[in-house]
Amino acid sequence: SVWISGALAQTDPLPSWNDGANKQAIVEFVEAVTSEGGADFVAPGERIATFDNDGTLWVEHPMYTQLAFAFDRVKALAPDHPEWKTTQPYQAVLENDMEALGKAGEKGLMEILAVTHASMSTAEFEKTVTDWIATARHPKFDKPYTELVYQPMLELLAYLRANDFKTFIVSGGGIEFMRPWTESVYGIPTEQVVGSSIVTEYKVVDGVPTLMRTPKIAFVDDKAGKPVGILTHIGKRPLAAFGNSDGDYQMLQYTTAGSGKRLGMFVHHDDADREYAYDRDTHFGSLNKGLDDAPKEGWHIISMKDDWKQIFPE
Amino acid sequence: SVWISGALAQTDPLPSWNDGANKQAIVEFVEAVTSEGGADFVAPGERIATFDNDGTLWVEHPMYTQLAFAFDRVKALAPDHPEWKTTQPYQAVLENDMEALGKAGEKGLMEILAVTHASMSTAEFEKTVTDWIATARHPKFDKPYTELVYQPMLELLAYLRANDFKTFIVSGGGIEFMRPWTESVYGIPTEQVVGSSIVTEYKVVDGVPTLMRTPKIAFVDDKAGKPVGILTHIGKRPLAAFGNSDGDYQMLQYTTAGSGKRLGMFVHHDDADREYAYDRDTHFGSLNKGLDDAPKEGWHIISMKDDWKQIFPE
Ligand SMILES: [Ca+2]
Ligand SMILES: [Ca+2]
Repeated sequence: SVWISGALAQTDPLPSWNDGANKQAIVEFVEAVTSEGGADFVAPGERIATFDNDGTLWVEHPMYTQLAFAFDRVKALAPDHPEWKTTQPYQAVLENDMEALGKAGEKGLMEILAVTHASMSTAEFEKTVTDWIATARHPKFDKPYTELVYQPMLELLAYLRANDFKTFIVSGGGIEFMRPWTESVYGIPTEQVVGSSIVTEYKVVDGVPTLMRTPKIAFVDDKAGKPVGILTHIGKRPLAAFGNSDGDYQMLQYTTAGSGKRLGMFVHHDDADREYAYDRDTHFGSLNKGLDDAPKEGWHIISMKDDWKQIFPE
Repeated sequence: SVWISGALAQTDPLPSWNDGANKQAIVEFVEAVTSEGGADFVAPGERIATFDNDGTLWVEHPMYTQLAFAFDRVKALAPDHPEWKTTQPYQAVLENDMEALGKAGEKGLMEILAVTHASMSTAEFEKTVTDWIATARHPKFDKPYTELVYQPMLELLAYLRANDFKTFIVSGGGIEFMRPWTESVYGIPTEQVVGSSIVTEYKVVDGVPTLMRTPKIAFVDDKAGKPVGILTHIGKRPLAAFGNSDGDYQMLQYTTAGSGKRLGMFVHHDDADREYAYDRDTHFGSLNKGLDDAPKEGWHIISMKDDWKQIFPE
């Protein structure tokens, strides 16, 4: 609307973004889809934007935050499991032995996830996550993880919502691991969080209706799973999608294959001074094919170093 | 707010509801959870109401509308499958032989659902549903199914939304069968539709990113599945839940087990003159345990005959 455009012209909605092609692409995209009567106008109810979480909205190095949570939980539960001191993969976690943990492989990791994430009610899990996230601190920045979110992306979320977008998280992370804090940190309510999940069963336990978390994987919201998660939870093709790794490749592909104006962007971690620098060769958030194909697909590569004035909120 | 309360006092938000205990329970519930400073006040973002669809928002007799769709699709596809004339369960559908169809059992029904609902893209399925629902007519009322929605429930949806509730459908029906029309008919957008689903796969077909529907069941959103569907899609316990059959028992149980003021209601089909009369003994939407346990659980039984001035929109 005229009023909003006028207000935006006066107060930059993206103050932590340096002027340049990427900031311009965002603003042009938003103006195109919100200009009534324009060729690319989209009705408010259809304005959907999806965001990966790890590495796109918050820090994912030196390891995914959910993994740090799982390791901390193993340590917290260890006094009740003396056998873990000499049993892998637990011993590796207790001794911070990443090499031994690597040897335990995916099977070892699934065992740790089962022990720390399942066989409890969703209410218990929510409390565990809420307590942990309130106290845990990042090893490099020595700050709560919820403060290690990207200020430019917070501004982007707010800018899109101010233009009647519904913003969704579409993450490979556990849906119930994110929901306890996404509303207060990102302004994204639980019903707009899409993630990986385990099979949960409803039963009445001692007279109390309870949702019990089982150790069985229900859905993996990564790679080709992301468009499926978007279908399941949203039922509309997004207008814009933001990611940082090849896990987001299909989400960007599905999004930008839609008709009319679309926007696909990768956050590129190229800022070793202020955050981390990694892309093709990393265990957490590797970006290979996305980097190769971005030019021909019309996807934008956001340089943390060049595009962002500021990384974290102050 | 004062303004809204004043406006409501002047214009009845539920004009198709007769005055009585059920209408009063609805209004008291809404006033309790929206009165700032009151003991039962709930912040707008937490105001969630869930609605079953078949038999709660629209007609489900003489059979579920989705089943009528499936049978019509078998008939439409039959010219390409001459063998169906002599093969069950197709022959039964083509000859409208409900007895033979009953003998084909659940296995026969799943076969029909697979043939009519799967092995196509979600885009194709959406178009098929959209075309069908625009032309199909109910055998008794000779009207489009989308006009056989309950006027009192449309008013209830609007009343709740006017009071900052988010309204969700939580139905045993197929999520992709509902989404093409729930926004225009109920004002419920695709992202607020929860339903049963089949496994869908993302792949690039001839260069086009495509979501392909497989014949494998992914999730059954019925009975104990409803609280699980609510967890998956919403992530919050509803304040109010509305159903009409034992398939909604666990949804009402989960909802009303929450703390503070809650509302659980069953629509009781007791109006043979204006719609249908059925409860304990029917193939579609049977209500047994719900009817027995409603008094002790504090659930309300809405009598279509006594509570509703009008059944369908005019
Ligand atoms: Ca990521
Ligand atoms: Ca029903």
